[in-house]
Amino acid sequence: MSQKRIAIFGSTGSIGTQALEVIASNPDLFSAEILTAQTNDTLLIKQALQFQPNMVVIGDEKKYPIVKEALAGTHTKVFAGEEALEEVASLDCYDMMLAAIVGYAGLKPTLCAIEIGKPIALANKETLVVAGDIIMRKAMEKRIAIIPVDSEHSAIFQCLVGEGRNKIEKIILTASGGPFLGKKPNFLVNVKKDHALQHPNWSMGAKITIDSATLMNKGLEMIEAKWLFNLQHDQIQVVVHPQSIIHSMVQFEDGSIKAQMGLPDMKLPIQYAMAFPNRIANPFPRYDFKRPETLSFEEPDTKTFRNLALAMEALRRGGNMPCILNAANEIAVYAFLRNRIGFLDMTEVVEQTMAKIAFIEQPTLEEYFETDGEARNFAASLIHM
Amino acid sequence: MSQKRIAIFGSTGSIGTQALEVIASNPDLFSAEILTAQTNDTLLIKQALQFQPNMVVIGDEKKYPIVKEALAGTHTKVFAGEEALEEVASLDCYDMMLAAIVGYAGLKPTLCAIEIGKPIALANKETLVVAGDIIMRKAMEKRIAIIPVDSEHSAIFQCLVGEGRNKIEKIILTASGGPFLGKKPNFLVNVKKDHALQHPNWSMGAKITIDSATLMNKGLEMIEAKWLFNLQHDQIQVVVHPQSIIHSMVQFEDGSIKAQMGLPDMKLPIQYAMAFPNRIANPFPRYDFKRPETLSFEEPDTKTFRNLALAMEALRRGGNMPCILNAANEIAVYAFLRNRIGFLDMTEVVEQTMAKIAFIEQPTLEEYFETDGEARNFAASLIHM
Repeated sequence: MSQKRIAIFGSTGSIGTQALEVIASNPDLFSAEILTAQTNDTLLIKQALQFQPNMVVIGDEKKYPIVKEALAGTHTKVFAGEEALEEVASLDCYDMMLAAIVGYAGLKPTLCAIEIGKPIALANKETLVVAGDIIMRKAMEKRIAIIPVDSEHSAIFQCLVGEGRNKIEKIILTASGGPFLGKKPNFLVNVKKDHALQHPNWSMGAKITIDSATLMNKGLEMIEAKWLFNLQHDQIQVVVHPQSIIHSMVQFEDGSIKAQMGLPDMKLPIQYAMAFPNRIANPFPRYDFKRPETLSFEEPDTKTFRNLALAMEALRRGGNMPCILNAANEIAVYAFLRNRIGFLDMTEVVEQTMAKIAFIEQPTLEEYFETDGEARNFAASLIHM
Repeated sequence: MSQKRIAIFGSTGSIGTQALEVIASNPDLFSAEILTAQTNDTLLIKQALQFQPNMVVIGDEKKYPIVKEALAGTHTKVFAGEEALEEVASLDCYDMMLAAIVGYAGLKPTLCAIEIGKPIALANKETLVVAGDIIMRKAMEKRIAIIPVDSEHSAIFQCLVGEGRNKIEKIILTASGGPFLGKKPNFLVNVKKDHALQHPNWSMGAKITIDSATLMNKGLEMIEAKWLFNLQHDQIQVVVHPQSIIHSMVQFEDGSIKAQMGLPDMKLPIQYAMAFPNRIANPFPRYDFKRPETLSFEEPDTKTFRNLALAMEALRRGGNMPCILNAANEIAVYAFLRNRIGFLDMTEVVEQTMAKIAFIEQPTLEEYFETDGEARNFAASLIHM
């Protein structure tokens, strides 16, 4: 296996930093060719000095001089700004993009990578939530693999290797239930940011941790799964599994179920996606079936965690509805993280935005961009009221 | 997929009859080309009239006239006796052998099928326990697939499709624990045949049901797994999982675990082996994660269920030791089924036979046959004392 040159878009986030740990542990297999960050210049500089990428991009143009200055005398080229992300993604100098930019901002660079035929390790679920039909069609045209990094989708992807196509009866996405499993609205109404940021099992970024607490994350994952695995909405089931040991499952048309399991550790699916179709031996801790723990399962409470019901509705309706859902949710989550709205208000923002923005059954990419902008503006207007 | 002609060796047993149900449900995919039975002439005749095989063999030669008479006027040819089993297995008139004869008697016909290059759906674990090295070497020479039918090994086989070779860190065989899970020797000493024949989860033949109650079955499965999947003895772990929903697991060298799950139903692995590499849609009941059931795991109690410890020792020592173990166990189980010895006596018979018969590190096939005979004679002499 020759050295794979990885372009990490979003290298300073939770996924990006763990991907760099994988690269550091496997220098014969991987190199960091491109690193990008939105605002964290300090960490980007530190990473660049350690991994000596060919290029770095800092999204926030105001920070360009700081990064440029710090990397003077190295061979690393420095770029800045949103457009530079797309330009660098379009360069034929890397072997795989790890798409780890959080939220909608990850969409355009990912499209550029697909356009030039680069395989994608996809950690940005919003890309598929917003424009899954277009992304998957382009990936098929270019014959490139989109390998999921989300632990649930990686689990399903792993269960599907070697299996025939069109043999999936359904997939079963497991959900930890988040920090508020079993709680009711009268509790949730008073939840504050710091509490919502405490996930019981997984260590992740702030946006996805809040989405996990509201179960919106599982809803976005359902939509992501639809596109990744070419499923109908009724082939996707969510089961709450508080121990997070079974990462997800596939039920085949003969009734056989395959599950992928392990301790919750994002490095495993990151490494799997980067090394696919190989597996890399590692010393990560193993799950031990001898410990006295039972694995339990229950139905999600979509009456309390209404974000999941809204996402299921968006999944069922299709068109630009998931794009509306995602845009409104991003605005709502960031407003919650800034203590501007309460925990349950996030659902209100999403629901009202879904009711307001015009439904388009088969949007073009431009119409997705317009929908995203309109939904964000409307969601923001609700919060500013 | 053209119609696959199946030779069912052992068609009147639990596996054989379920395989015929699969054939009856999928007449476009399968036909029954050869059916064989040891003693059950009545059922063999009924099956032959329904499935119209090319040939049948009745092992018990005294019953030849009955079967011959009953099938006069049909196109089915009738043979009788042990040698006829081998002759028919050597005929190039079928596409796959389902090796479902119980115990050591299944070995020779299976070898004949491998010799003429027929893929094997292997339901007879004793074949690999007794002479796994020779069977697997011959299968490799002839480039034929040996597809396990045992639910545990089918689970592992399913988890391995599409995975690279040599990436297995260990396999985890799940064990229901049988009807006496949690019991101690002072209880087991009084166990009678009828009680031991009540398996909590699986419907199987008498021999394997007793082996499940003593945990010898899991020990034989460890030895079978070693050969099927080319493992070292310390790569095979047994975990008690009383619900029998996870049928077994593979842990890869990156720590990722894959499990195959479902309701306990032997028809599923039978169908999988017959249709491999395809899966066949079916209306079998599905496992429902919404039911309030937890999945639990614990270490096997090898101090109480000493058969498992003896099998682990045979696995570790290799050579003809598994053959000795198996021969003594067959004698012991049949003696128990005839109320000749008690439940715990079965372990004594196996242990003493293992201590008595000469160890051979790399036996020839002839030496395996000799070992089997010597071990049976010695085990029988212990019981007759």
